Amino acid sequence: MAMAGDPDILTDFVLPPNLTNVDGNFFTFTGMRVLIGAPLPPTFKVLKASLAEFPALNGQSVSYAVLLYPAGSVNPVHTHPRSAELLFLAEGALEVGFVDTTNKLFTQTLQSGDLFVFPKGLVHFQYNSDAKVPALAISAFGSANAGTVSLPNTLFNTSIDDNVLALSLKTDVATIQKLKAGLAPKK
Amino acid sequence: MAMAGDPDILTDFVLPPNLTNVDGNFFTFTGMRVLIGAPLPPTFKVLKASLAEFPALNGQSVSYAVLLYPAGSVNPVHTHPRSAELLFLAEGALEVGFVDTTNKLFTQTLQSGDLFVFPKGLVHFQYNSDAKVPALAISAFGSANAGTVSLPNTLFNTSIDDNVLALSLKTDVATIQKLKAGLAPKK
Amino acid sequence: MAMAGDPDILTDFVLPPNLTNVDGNFFTFTGMRVLIGAPLPPTFKVLKASLAEFPALNGQSVSYAVLLYPAGSVNPVHTHPRSAELLFLAEGALEVGFVDTTNKLFTQTLQSGDLFVFPKGLVHFQYNSDAKVPALAISAFGSANAGTVSLPNTLFNTSIDDNVLALSLKTDVATIQKLKAGLAPKK
Amino acid sequence: MAMAGDPDILTDFVLPPNLTNVDGNFFTFTGMRVLIGAPLPPTFKVLKASLAEFPALNGQSVSYAVLLYPAGSVNPVHTHPRSAELLFLAEGALEVGFVDTTNKLFTQTLQSGDLFVFPKGLVHFQYNSDAKVPALAISAFGSANAGTVSLPNTLFNTSIDDNVLALSLKTDVATIQKLKAGLAPKK
Amino acid sequence: MAMAGDPDILTDFVLPPNLTNVDGNFFTFTGMRVLIGAPLPPTFKVLKASLAEFPALNGQSVSYAVLLYPAGSVNPVHTHPRSAELLFLAEGALEVGFVDTTNKLFTQTLQSGDLFVFPKGLVHFQYNSDAKVPALAISAFGSANAGTVSLPNTLFNTSIDDNVLALSLKTDVATIQKLKAGLAPKK
Amino acid sequence: MAMAGDPDILTDFVLPPNLTNVDGNFFTFTGMRVLIGAPLPPTFKVLKASLAEFPALNGQSVSYAVLLYPAGSVNPVHTHPRSAELLFLAEGALEVGFVDTTNKLFTQTLQSGDLFVFPKGLVHFQYNSDAKVPALAISAFGSANAGTVSLPNTLFNTSIDDNVLALSLKTDVATIQKLKAGLAPKK
Repeated sequence: MAMAGDPDILTDFVLPPNLTNVDGNFFTFTGMRVLIGAPLPPTFKVLKASLAEFPALNGQSVSYAVLLYPAGSVNPVHTHPRSAELLFLAEGALEVGFVDTTNKLFTQTLQSGDLFVFPKGLVHFQYNSDAKVPALAISAFGSANAGTVSLPNTLFNTSIDDNVLALSLKTDVATIQKLKAGLAPKK
Repeated sequence: MAMAGDPDILTDFVLPPNLTNVDGNFFTFTGMRVLIGAPLPPTFKVLKASLAEFPALNGQSVSYAVLLYPAGSVNPVHTHPRSAELLFLAEGALEVGFVDTTNKLFTQTLQSGDLFVFPKGLVHFQYNSDAKVPALAISAFGSANAGTVSLPNTLFNTSIDDNVLALSLKTDVATIQKLKAGLAPKK
Repeated sequence: MAMAGDPDILTDFVLPPNLTNVDGNFFTFTGMRVLIGAPLPPTFKVLKASLAEFPALNGQSVSYAVLLYPAGSVNPVHTHPRSAELLFLAEGALEVGFVDTTNKLFTQTLQSGDLFVFPKGLVHFQYNSDAKVPALAISAFGSANAGTVSLPNTLFNTSIDDNVLALSLKTDVATIQKLKAGLAPKK
Repeated sequence: MAMAGDPDILTDFVLPPNLTNVDGNFFTFTGMRVLIGAPLPPTFKVLKASLAEFPALNGQSVSYAVLLYPAGSVNPVHTHPRSAELLFLAEGALEVGFVDTTNKLFTQTLQSGDLFVFPKGLVHFQYNSDAKVPALAISAFGSANAGTVSLPNTLFNTSIDDNVLALSLKTDVATIQKLKAGLAPKK
Repeated sequence: MAMAGDPDILTDFVLPPNLTNVDGNFFTFTGMRVLIGAPLPPTFKVLKASLAEFPALNGQSVSYAVLLYPAGSVNPVHTHPRSAELLFLAEGALEVGFVDTTNKLFTQTLQSGDLFVFPKGLVHFQYNSDAKVPALAISAFGSANAGTVSLPNTLFNTSIDDNVLALSLKTDVATIQKLKAGLAPKK
Repeated sequence: MAMAGDPDILTDFVLPPNLTNVDGNFFTFTGMRVLIGAPLPPTFKVLKASLAEFPALNGQSVSYAVLLYPAGSVNPVHTHPRSAELLFLAEGALEVGFVDTTNKLFTQTLQSGDLFVFPKGLVHFQYNSDAKVPALAISAFGSANAGTVSLPNTLFNTSIDDNVLALSLKTDVATIQKLKAGLAPKK
């Protein structure tokens, strides 16, 4: 039996203020054309088509991200506060996993063509452990603006008090400062 | 300003009845592996990963379909009653369009890498008008079970009274019967 | 066990911008007084009380339509993308039906006083097959703006490419053009 | 701009447990046929078509009630906790009103053919003040189970402590007991 | 099995118009500091932290009220149209109750540390029957703006027609006028 | 203008299977009586009244937690995937903060009687930095089952691959192993 659903807007679509007449271009997003035939970037990279990049998604409860994993790269541990993520692995292989609210880890090794669903709001990651072969995935979200909480940046690249972090992680302040230094923006 | 949202389930995920212990396999769908490296089918074809094929999507408000368009093929006019569709065109080119509730047609010619959003519940189509080059798209839905109402089959491949259809379409019964014959399953 | 529900607004009601003080008139709609004691129109006709005609419905998730069927008339095949329809047949008799997403047709013959529910987003119709007696129904919707997709007009009274329609309906372009001509506005 | 919406179920309709094959009868409610041509009852009366009487409404977010008002009768002050009410006055005239959460009263005198919307959750009433002419209304709700809290019965026909009621209403216990006696079921 | 949920906003939080840069003060409400160490008021009193008092609650689906009950005081019969109420009794004892839509009364005697949930939209009350000891509770609501319908004021402190009330309550107009006089604002 | 809301159940309340007759005890939770007059625990501790502990909350979209902070203790960095948190600080003082999805930190120093709202799904913490005075807070959630993702345990007390964590945090495997050792259950 099914239990969840998606609320409607009360119109066919939502136009931005001051935009009253639209044609098919409003419903089209061309920002990912650059991906076709392009070489993979040297580090892990995400291209998004969400509410900010593609305003026609407002009220439609769906969005996309394309994820590019060079060999040996990771999509660091993170959550999406407003949606589950349904990943389709188009090329390469990935180690993936998430942790539920009982602190149980679920992992999988995906091959090309596989799908994996990361439930809403839970911590998850993807890792291309292959030394040579890159990977490419496309992920769908059931919200126009799923949002991303990057845990490394949230924890160690903001100015949260070192004591709060040291007490939280049951470690010493020096370890916290080392982690902060590693994640600080390069000058 | 944003207006729509997605309701939550009250658990991390929803397990089917009698299934109490799951691992990463439950969250994995392998039914699309067959696509990788395979030749395109001779006629338009859809592979779905929705609630029926992939029970882990229950409560996660997201699903996928992969759409395969041989040269000259069409994805016939249809609606999805429970979700918008966000199409990513991975290969080839497509003519796409939808009609809103004021009877206005929105169309676009998509090239590889383009996205197009078909708003929830509206009639839409995709057409690969190229004589030689096939096309391949992946579509995301903001519901685990978007549903599909195929208009040719709904109208002319059920036993709706010929008079209802002739009066609806302001045509004669003979034209209705011709259309029904064309869409009837081949014996 | 019940599964669906209706989300709230965060106020008792929603006033249009620049309207800050209202009395009982705002919550009253008089546009259907004309129906009382009036003769039926010569062709099928709908009178609506939805968000556009009656702004007080905003946020209240309910609306009405009154449907007038002269003898032999049809309410052509259509969908409502944002609500189910609950029809109350006040006068006359009707043949009604809808098709679900598995392409199964459900039909019924209604007599005066009967109710029929057309589930959300599915194709449906009503037909007064009686040669002499008119019919009158009132339909309730669980949305302030259910919307209507008229399938004859959507398919054949917009400029959707003839090839898309012919391929969709597995017929020839001449048949599509004949249908378009029949539904074109009279000059 | 519109702000509220209606969540979906994930199927076309919801069947009761152990009911797997249905036809058009499941979607039909005949319990109001008795109204057609029948004399009005001697006291105010409601006939409902909601989830309890008509299981096909489950998940469709809509229901009906028919309200019969003999001359001089009242539909006593009440609320519907789960839906607004959109009343269509088919016959006669009515005094109607509701009170919002700022304690402001909104009233109206309705004539045949008028509609009035009672916002969700607020206290409201209808009164046929005419000495001779009965009235008949049909009300739509944007929930399959709007629910009714009858305030006279809730306050004075349950065993709420007389002191609680006297303190609440700033009156004496004797007045509370008089009100309770008036509303007690006749033996 | 769990069935209800809370819809999302599409942003982390909602800022009021013209407020684009906020810090931690926006998310802080200091209006209840006055409670700490203060004597209880002579009559029943409510302090709220809802959307009106604390704009950061917009879109967060939660709010608070602190309830102060001198000895012998009552929180008069009322409903919250947009939320259940979860009461935590911090000090003293309370008689509490609510009536469901089948007109069944549920009551309880609470001691310090107890919680009681009043379901959404139903009539309820709290009564400190102790002659000497005051009580203090804090109540949480699953909406930023639960709203309150005070039944004594709604029924007898607005200008609802005496006849409507007398007929509703099956009493005489004199009793209605006596109740109205008791609840009228003191001059 | 307000934008979020809470969906309804279709009944007054939801009873667990096989429980058909309930009284006021079902709506009462006594598990926090133990707090009254008790000494604070030696380490940070949470007592919850959510769906698991208090089944009457099902469908009511609200729950509570009481938070006990000895001097110098922290509620470690965490998220609630299904609700915002509205904290009421009853005793003591707290340093609180959260990080939004743009990686901006919002902090505040709360004194007794203050409220702070942590928006839905975002990483947050509370810290009692006082060397001697304990603190006590009560937090409300707009979901019956907000869920908690403890980030220290999720990241370092599950068996997520050390390489994934080291790459995510831009540190070495030795640091990850040290953090894991610090958070491992004591034997």
